[in-house]
Amino acid sequence: MGKVKVVINGYGVIGRRVADAILKQDDMELIGVTKTKPDFRLLEAKEKRIKIFTVSDKNAFEEKNYQVEGDLKDALKETDVVIDCSPKNKGVENLEVYKQFPNLKVIFQGGESHNLTNFSFNSQCNYDEAKEKKYARVVSCNTTALCRIISQLNKFYKIKKARVAVVRRSADPGNSKKSIINSWEPKLEYPSHHSPDVTTVIPDIKISSLAGIAPMTAMHGHMLFIEFYNQPNTPEEVIKNLECNPRIKIISSEEGFSTTAQIKDFSVSNGRKGNMYEVCIWKEGIGLDEDSELGMHIAIDQQAIVVPETIDAIRAMFGLMEKDESINKTNANLNIS
Amino acid sequence: MGKVKVVINGYGVIGRRVADAILKQDDMELIGVTKTKPDFRLLEAKEKRIKIFTVSDKNAFEEKNYQVEGDLKDALKETDVVIDCSPKNKGVENLEVYKQFPNLKVIFQGGESHNLTNFSFNSQCNYDEAKEKKYARVVSCNTTALCRIISQLNKFYKIKKARVAVVRRSADPGNSKKSIINSWEPKLEYPSHHSPDVTTVIPDIKISSLAGIAPMTAMHGHMLFIEFYNQPNTPEEVIKNLECNPRIKIISSEEGFSTTAQIKDFSVSNGRKGNMYEVCIWKEGIGLDEDSELGMHIAIDQQAIVVPETIDAIRAMFGLMEKDESINKTNANLNIS
Repeated sequence: MGKVKVVINGYGVIGRRVADAILKQDDMELIGVTKTKPDFRLLEAKEKRIKIFTVSDKNAFEEKNYQVEGDLKDALKETDVVIDCSPKNKGVENLEVYKQFPNLKVIFQGGESHNLTNFSFNSQCNYDEAKEKKYARVVSCNTTALCRIISQLNKFYKIKKARVAVVRRSADPGNSKKSIINSWEPKLEYPSHHSPDVTTVIPDIKISSLAGIAPMTAMHGHMLFIEFYNQPNTPEEVIKNLECNPRIKIISSEEGFSTTAQIKDFSVSNGRKGNMYEVCIWKEGIGLDEDSELGMHIAIDQQAIVVPETIDAIRAMFGLMEKDESINKTNANLNIS
Repeated sequence: MGKVKVVINGYGVIGRRVADAILKQDDMELIGVTKTKPDFRLLEAKEKRIKIFTVSDKNAFEEKNYQVEGDLKDALKETDVVIDCSPKNKGVENLEVYKQFPNLKVIFQGGESHNLTNFSFNSQCNYDEAKEKKYARVVSCNTTALCRIISQLNKFYKIKKARVAVVRRSADPGNSKKSIINSWEPKLEYPSHHSPDVTTVIPDIKISSLAGIAPMTAMHGHMLFIEFYNQPNTPEEVIKNLECNPRIKIISSEEGFSTTAQIKDFSVSNGRKGNMYEVCIWKEGIGLDEDSELGMHIAIDQQAIVVPETIDAIRAMFGLMEKDESINKTNANLNIS
């Protein structure tokens, strides 16, 4: 086939980043994005000559001199796949619209539940299963990070059980309203939704998670306790076996990464427009306890980490190329090395 | 013996709270407190007619009309025990001064290392061992919380291993300078100092911890994963077996405790001057996973939780009464029920 035609439904935190990534792939063509409000994000779209479709009043856009190509259905008519980047839990409603286009493939994001598509995707874990799938869900930022690390460690040391404590950011950097302040908000469930979500991608893993929200915008932090059947010899060995995966980045406090703020700062200045696609692991935070159980601190850019997986999901669903080829191509195009 | 005479060296975050607690005990007499700077905290001391000793320039105090009774050594001459509430890591230096008073007993706080006294105290865990001890350390807020919960659970279900993820507050409420902002700062070590510290009190427990700092002042949060030899039947059973301990408080989101902010707010309005002496456990956050492993969220008032233990430590070291009698007396005097 020629280039895969892509529409992005929703041009917000994730949609904008996926759009940028699509523009960098030579086997994909961005048909356009949808937008509900004519706000400042359209300046960015206009500059990049991205076509705008709208699901709301066209006049409001035209009054502000933004050209609108049509509505969501007009966009869907022209595309092979839609990436649903609309707000969380809009998936059920949107799927009804998408179903009106018999050949359309759909990729949802991790805010939707597994049941919506019955297939949850992570590049490393189940790329091959995506072939022929019409509907898929790229799992959330936290789940994507865990899938990468767990599947990587599982290659070397069989995991007996993972226990994950998630410290979530309270709001995204571009959000000035929705946040707790000066306090800790536990998510009152055990396990939290994260560990069952990992098992939608890696069904045979034993994992339990707890989560809470801290008043910050700069990334999520996780504290991981991982028990193995085959025990690692040294933390250095574990680091070596993690860092060979380009989507896992080992960072060091010696380099000045003392908090998530420095990681975000680095990702702005490294030509990636603030996007840290890799899951970050602090070198000095990796250790083995007396049972050779692994402890580690990781950091996750909630806005960017799912972007490479979304690109791979398109290739996987259309059978464009094999897993490793797609991962390498995406990595190269997004400057992940 | 008559009332135990007490001097508090340091009238800061912990010292002020210990002073208040001493004033409520009929078997203790507060000789006075030391202060290095004549700041607003002295207004509180003056109002309570607490005698001030100083380790610095007496004139600076007198210029501001604060009466100074003498220096640290003058205070130590008059007392049976000194509670060292000076800044972290001043213990080694201070101990040299205390040793000049052959009959003086000393209680340090958890900022000091175990090696300073070779005896670390928690009321529930090792009250009886404190008898005849000259020097003791009341363990830190986080360790005190863990000791209470672990020893309580160990009575009912033998703990196989505990994994603890600590989300630390970045500064105390009265501190406007020392804090990270808007980011997560992992403590880059595994295990963090918390789990070895618990074993200074409960030597036979298997425990590992990871910790980080979040930008907030309202309490520490912990996420606990606890594996047992004897498995609990239901979360409700675990709650029942925890809440029978008055120093463990089960709180509920139904009552409006959604974050640590509400707990702090409650502790201000309940006549305790903002002090939450109990370790708080969210009822709805307690669960058992498929292995009957316990998960829970707890919150710890870093300023207050060690106060009841400090009071008990005095009684234990002077052999004033038995463990349960002291705990009950302290609880009654501090309105812990």
